Amino acid sequence: MSERMTKGSVIAQYLPERVTPVGETIAPVFAPSNIALCKYWGKRDVELNLPINSSLSISLAHLGTQTRLSVSDEDAVWLNGEKVAAQDKFARKVIAFIDLFRGPQGSPVKVETDNNIPTAAGLASSASGFAALMLAIDGFYGLKLDPQCLSAFARMGSGSASRSLYTGFVEWQMGVREDGMDSIALPLDSHWDALRIGLVKVSVAEKAVDSRSGMNRTVETAHLYQSWPLQAAADLERLHQAIADKNFTQLGETAEQNALSMHATMIAAWPPLLYWQPGSVAAMHRIWQARAEGVEVYFTMDAGPNLKLLFTAEAEAAVKHYFPDMEVIAPFG
Amino acid sequence: MSERMTKGSVIAQYLPERVTPVGETIAPVFAPSNIALCKYWGKRDVELNLPINSSLSISLAHLGTQTRLSVSDEDAVWLNGEKVAAQDKFARKVIAFIDLFRGPQGSPVKVETDNNIPTAAGLASSASGFAALMLAIDGFYGLKLDPQCLSAFARMGSGSASRSLYTGFVEWQMGVREDGMDSIALPLDSHWDALRIGLVKVSVAEKAVDSRSGMNRTVETAHLYQSWPLQAAADLERLHQAIADKNFTQLGETAEQNALSMHATMIAAWPPLLYWQPGSVAAMHRIWQARAEGVEVYFTMDAGPNLKLLFTAEAEAAVKHYFPDMEVIAPFG
Repeated sequence: MSERMTKGSVIAQYLPERVTPVGETIAPVFAPSNIALCKYWGKRDVELNLPINSSLSISLAHLGTQTRLSVSDEDAVWLNGEKVAAQDKFARKVIAFIDLFRGPQGSPVKVETDNNIPTAAGLASSASGFAALMLAIDGFYGLKLDPQCLSAFARMGSGSASRSLYTGFVEWQMGVREDGMDSIALPLDSHWDALRIGLVKVSVAEKAVDSRSGMNRTVETAHLYQSWPLQAAADLERLHQAIADKNFTQLGETAEQNALSMHATMIAAWPPLLYWQPGSVAAMHRIWQARAEGVEVYFTMDAGPNLKLLFTAEAEAAVKHYFPDMEVIAPFG
Repeated sequence: MSERMTKGSVIAQYLPERVTPVGETIAPVFAPSNIALCKYWGKRDVELNLPINSSLSISLAHLGTQTRLSVSDEDAVWLNGEKVAAQDKFARKVIAFIDLFRGPQGSPVKVETDNNIPTAAGLASSASGFAALMLAIDGFYGLKLDPQCLSAFARMGSGSASRSLYTGFVEWQMGVREDGMDSIALPLDSHWDALRIGLVKVSVAEKAVDSRSGMNRTVETAHLYQSWPLQAAADLERLHQAIADKNFTQLGETAEQNALSMHATMIAAWPPLLYWQPGSVAAMHRIWQARAEGVEVYFTMDAGPNLKLLFTAEAEAAVKHYFPDMEVIAPFG
């Protein structure tokens, strides 16, 4: 067995000898949030965020994170226009990620990051956050990393960030290498203009258990998790086929069963992990009611209480009848 | 391969040549409802209700079904003092079960059955119902079947009815025989006076999908079901150990994870099977809150929205603080 790899040791091989800012600041860079239709759930390497299964997502167009880096007197992280305390978990994660590139002795930076989605409410702000931060680091230090490296390194910040470097449909291939440099996302060459995503907010409160801990607890304690990798592999194939055929029923059914199966593995963990609130269950029953009444709408959910509805443009008015408050996104613009 | 066995062909081997009433009527017989701590979920034989896994339950003392049979001019089923229409699903199931013994040409009977638990609300009235009906048939026709036969035949009416012939802890051994005559329940020689069960009713509405259909759909469509039989086997061992050691923490944790894992397999089925209502999820969060606050209470759930709490006599007052409306049962009297 070779020595255990660390984020720093992998990244170092792709960096120039000296990593220094190329200017005072950069233009803000943007990365979209993404919603997985086949979920990333379970790691084969916790340090490098290497997944047990490949996943497939759709990026949320204009919803995401915008980030800029600037030279500063001291490290400072600003989130949505407010300075974050240095000892705050979020600030420490951001600075620790920058340290992987500039080194802990690097010159101080100011990080300004703005989310237009609720932070930590299950809408995957960490994915767009680390993707935008990766792009900002690349620009600020003039690293000119290739897309594969950007995706692999963003993954080390947050697994699903690997997918947030692209718009449209994106597949994160699990890869097989020990250093994870083949565990990267690639965009699919497919458009689906009529596809719509509806965001249904049940709660925007901070989660009691973060996704990272939830995922690890599930892998360690849920017997049912053993069946997950094969299910995910089958779902990925079905999604590719659905996208190729523009078969919305197959896309929706596969995404909904995949999400519910992921939640099922959490529910079977110990202690039990139930991200659902009463309002989540009420919304699910409403969706199934809508389908029973002939409206073709499906949902997916991440490690949180909120739902993301899947439907097509022609069904939008009918879906709004059931969910008047949802925010509708056209991921293909 | 031998010929496919039917309920009738198996039962016939244990019956006298002529099955006729020994008198006008019998004294009513009672069978308790039971709550499984390790669930019966999935059949290896749909006709005979032969299970994929062994299960373990606790009977609910005075809650259950009382049934009597009488000679009558025509077949008639009375439930809780009201006559049930002959074409009603419930009446047809009862008469079809009696036909297995008296034959379709047998003389007509009046069935009077009384549940003191809500019918079809997830409190397993079919278990106590078929157990009581089996006992009533045995008495009314003077069959004098041995306990193993009574359990095996009650199982053909409803799987979990095999366990409702006994009080206290009961194990239903899955068996290996093709005719299922070793797939029978046996009582455990263990008492646990301090054990309490709290019934928390979320809804007493009839279920949209009955347990039988739900179970079959899960086995056929849920990838995650593949991991269930091994989990159930492990849970059964842990429950035996917990009962032997009077280790309530182990009993409660095992029962709760077993129930949630069973529901997880349904949630992962297609179409999804979610017996939970918003109130079910609210009750679960309340239980976890109580545990976080030092009150040792666990829950189990069957294919329905209601919860059954598990706690000990000393915690009863504390649990009532969280669930003032629950009905408390002392299964060991």
